[in-house]
Amino acid sequence: MGTLKNDRFLRALLRQPVDVTPVWMMRQAGRYLPEYRATRERAGDFMTLCRTPELACEVTLQPLERYPLDAAILFSDILTVPDAMGLGLYFGQGEGPRFERPVRSAADIDALPVPDPEDELRYVMDAVRLIRRELGGRVPLIGFSGSPWTLATYMVEGGSSKEFSRVKGMMYAQPALMHRLLGTLADAVTAYLDAQIRAGAQAVMLFDTWGGALTTRDYLEFSLAYMTRIVAGLTREHEGRRVPVVLFTKGGAQWLEAMAGSGADALGVDWTLDIGEARRRVGARVALQGNMDPCALYAPPDRIRAEVEAVLASYGAGAGHVFNLGHGIHPHVDPASVRVFIEAVHELSARFHP
Amino acid sequence: MGTLKNDRFLRALLRQPVDVTPVWMMRQAGRYLPEYRATRERAGDFMTLCRTPELACEVTLQPLERYPLDAAILFSDILTVPDAMGLGLYFGQGEGPRFERPVRSAADIDALPVPDPEDELRYVMDAVRLIRRELGGRVPLIGFSGSPWTLATYMVEGGSSKEFSRVKGMMYAQPALMHRLLGTLADAVTAYLDAQIRAGAQAVMLFDTWGGALTTRDYLEFSLAYMTRIVAGLTREHEGRRVPVVLFTKGGAQWLEAMAGSGADALGVDWTLDIGEARRRVGARVALQGNMDPCALYAPPDRIRAEVEAVLASYGAGAGHVFNLGHGIHPHVDPASVRVFIEAVHELSARFHP
Repeated sequence: MGTLKNDRFLRALLRQPVDVTPVWMMRQAGRYLPEYRATRERAGDFMTLCRTPELACEVTLQPLERYPLDAAILFSDILTVPDAMGLGLYFGQGEGPRFERPVRSAADIDALPVPDPEDELRYVMDAVRLIRRELGGRVPLIGFSGSPWTLATYMVEGGSSKEFSRVKGMMYAQPALMHRLLGTLADAVTAYLDAQIRAGAQAVMLFDTWGGALTTRDYLEFSLAYMTRIVAGLTREHEGRRVPVVLFTKGGAQWLEAMAGSGADALGVDWTLDIGEARRRVGARVALQGNMDPCALYAPPDRIRAEVEAVLASYGAGAGHVFNLGHGIHPHVDPASVRVFIEAVHELSARFHP
Repeated sequence: MGTLKNDRFLRALLRQPVDVTPVWMMRQAGRYLPEYRATRERAGDFMTLCRTPELACEVTLQPLERYPLDAAILFSDILTVPDAMGLGLYFGQGEGPRFERPVRSAADIDALPVPDPEDELRYVMDAVRLIRRELGGRVPLIGFSGSPWTLATYMVEGGSSKEFSRVKGMMYAQPALMHRLLGTLADAVTAYLDAQIRAGAQAVMLFDTWGGALTTRDYLEFSLAYMTRIVAGLTREHEGRRVPVVLFTKGGAQWLEAMAGSGADALGVDWTLDIGEARRRVGARVALQGNMDPCALYAPPDRIRAEVEAVLASYGAGAGHVFNLGHGIHPHVDPASVRVFIEAVHELSARFHP
């Protein structure tokens, strides 16, 4: 596959020394970019964009053409796995994701297949292979999946939710059934991420968007336990390099110590936690990825630079930090502000890597 | 005003001994009760229900007729203050709250009046006086307001928000302007809560629903600082009794130590934090209110009782605990499950108060 010209991102995830702090953004291929909106328009709808490897590759590379980012992330959706299980993912006009056939009963759960990643999800693997080829070793490619708990919330609710009444109702009233669903999802996600690694993803990330809606006890039992199982089941060495795994539980600040014991190499941190405090808590066990408030990108350039500096200074000197936003970049951010942000990370971080 | 027959709630908030753990529920006067839905139907719309003291009193008392709750809470909305400032609060069909005239500019902010609680908000004070009369000393009455930061989010966004782009954009780009808005809101909320106390509210609660969307630094500067200022400005002794103040920041688990220094008597805790852990962190500085997951009320009776027991055991023996849900009760909960919950708190807590 050729050599990797910029491996800062992979090195930082493994807590190895780097020249400057690597940076990428969650949802960096997204609506804030006019070229993304143009491709999306051409695709017609969001799922066609995800399902067409050439288009997914095109939008994956767009932010890299504009900015000196240190990683590319596969353009896809976190709900491809339940879609491949037959739930019928769709996006209504101006709505979030919905499933035509939500999972509500024991019979629904027992009927769920574990999709073959090179069959029902082949379009994702083809996108990974194509992106790797097109990247030509410029920066590493990140693969990803939703966590079992997060996928379960959408599958049981039938879409997005604020209160999670149905899925948590099932968890409280029928915990054994919920464990069956999560077990199937853990198998499916393990196969899916492993196939991404074998197709060329050089790091993988588990997005646990809704783990933060749980109590501590339930987070450990219904979310973290399944992520731990997935991490243990993945190919961790490929093309002669370690493949780092990153866990990100939004709103999971209080469970960092437990997450650090999952076997993951790095943890994503949202902006509500001071990253220096996070570093003190996890010590040398894992690297950290984060965590500027995405809303800071609405500020003028000087303030953006000051926010970058504050996050860098909070993490402090030494290895183990990948800069990111604490959540996905918003669609209304000015692309010029993104440039200020990315350049500030590289410029201001040099002094933290003496 | 006569004697208070059941003062467990006030005693627990002041960390004084009680016979059993007092319990009430956020949104206890709400849609899960058929009698509430009937009164709401009669009122026509939500704001008429809030603005008509007789109707607000009627729904406030409904849950107390059904269950042995240890406190009543004024039926009102957290957005009455900005409405009285002239923003035009309304509720669209099936939507959350909206403002006809959101606050977007320095001119908008400088024009905001501090409403006179006995004039523009007289309907709230009349409701407090009427409820006190109708309660006849059965249990104490809780008054409340939204926190300045939480009110500001609705006022700037024009309604509910997921990402808070506008209000946090203003905070990052024009921090001095945001402080002017929050200062005016702190003055208005102080006057509003103080008038509720003088009208008869025996404890007051500040709901900081959206403080958890901030970074630690911004939470301290833009939310907690203004709540602290409000607490310092309130009448704390009335009718010969201490009037306890409760702060509740949803998603604020990591800032409990800072909140304990606000001058409040008690902190509300959402379900994501183990309440025993919260108690260890705040020590003897404040009482705690919470924190069963509202979704546990979807479970069968035995499981509800087990959840109550788990929260009680986590808090442990001794004073300073008011039982509550970690957030408002959901509209689809079975009222029979609520009875199981309330009775379990009283029955199972006796052994923790030897």
